[in-house]
Amino acid sequence: MMEQELTKFLTFWDHLNENEKELLKQNATLQTYAKGITMHRGSDDCLGVVLVRKGQLRTYMLSPDGRDITLYRLFAGDVCILSASCVLETITFDVFIDIEENSEIITITATLFQQLAKQNIYVETFGYKMATNRFSDVMWAMQQILFMSVDKRLAIFLKEEAEKNNSLELKITHEQIAKYMATAREVVTRMLKYFSQEGIVKISRGKITIVDKHKLDKLTID
Amino acid sequence: MMEQELTKFLTFWDHLNENEKELLKQNATLQTYAKGITMHRGSDDCLGVVLVRKGQLRTYMLSPDGRDITLYRLFAGDVCILSASCVLETITFDVFIDIEENSEIITITATLFQQLAKQNIYVETFGYKMATNRFSDVMWAMQQILFMSVDKRLAIFLKEEAEKNNSLELKITHEQIAKYMATAREVVTRMLKYFSQEGIVKISRGKITIVDKHKLDKLTID
Repeated sequence: MMEQELTKFLTFWDHLNENEKELLKQNATLQTYAKGITMHRGSDDCLGVVLVRKGQLRTYMLSPDGRDITLYRLFAGDVCILSASCVLETITFDVFIDIEENSEIITITATLFQQLAKQNIYVETFGYKMATNRFSDVMWAMQQILFMSVDKRLAIFLKEEAEKNNSLELKITHEQIAKYMATAREVVTRMLKYFSQEGIVKISRGKITIVDKHKLDKLTID
Repeated sequence: MMEQELTKFLTFWDHLNENEKELLKQNATLQTYAKGITMHRGSDDCLGVVLVRKGQLRTYMLSPDGRDITLYRLFAGDVCILSASCVLETITFDVFIDIEENSEIITITATLFQQLAKQNIYVETFGYKMATNRFSDVMWAMQQILFMSVDKRLAIFLKEEAEKNNSLELKITHEQIAKYMATAREVVTRMLKYFSQEGIVKISRGKITIVDKHKLDKLTID
């Protein structure tokens, strides 16, 4: 079973020799992580390469005073390489990774990945290629944060949440939205009040209901 | 001469066969670019891999309304890979690159780099490794922009400019500083006024003079 999973995630599989394949099969571990756990804390640990079998992870950076900025999310089928950043010499920054939904995770330890990357160029390439992939995600997030107006970002966030949960009723706090949008809670609260006055949403305790989907959609493309 | 330069920049050189080496030697071109030119404009062109022999380049992203955010600078000895982003499939964003000082540039066309990366895994790895390198630069810039207070960032900028030019007298406009710091001109003007009131700088037309280096230094580490 594990071999089948590994071949799916690790696109370098066919370039491995039997010994390398065996090493991976015997040392990759499947674990479940509960929602809410911080799986990776910057330079404090170097978990290794993480393959998301099921669930949802959030990668973010943390300011000295505790503000956090969401960089990207990982879903089933995704490979998390920044949890093995200690292995890739050109990565000199730290990120944090939280488990957002109960997840099933296959881990290849940093030590094993490093060994394989040293002896097999295809493994090394995979690592840097995956990292470059996340570079694209981060550039996208940065453009959102730095260039896009708050109303548009909030509208997009609400729309995506509604689609993800298949419901117009969103059980989420202003604090949580602010975290996802990498802004301050006050900014979210103010904008939600404006959305509410415009008849786009209805706000009640711990709940936001989208009442005019058409108007919301229009905001996301303006 | 060209071969010597190429071996210095291209760490995969020893993994090339004679034919590949010959291709590079015959097709790499040395050009000079004048200060002020925009060398690369996002997805509009795909110049190829650029080796900086001499000079200074600035890589930045551009908002739909024309604001720009400096991501990193390249100096003599650096390799610019994002000007060949069309070749690397996991790069899905666009950047702009300006020539900041008269520069001597060796270019390997995107077509040639792509061909080599396809037939030689070491070339492909080099591309993604260089990209990951820039990922680290961008994360650093992002932390500066999102997490650091404006006074500290301005102090660091002034200090670095003074060191770079070996002079406490900086001939630079508020507009230019704002561009470098990825903020608005008004923010820079307001903070410079504060610095001036604190006796840290003296502001005159088109010129900023650092009058209290000690106080400025203190601001950069607070």
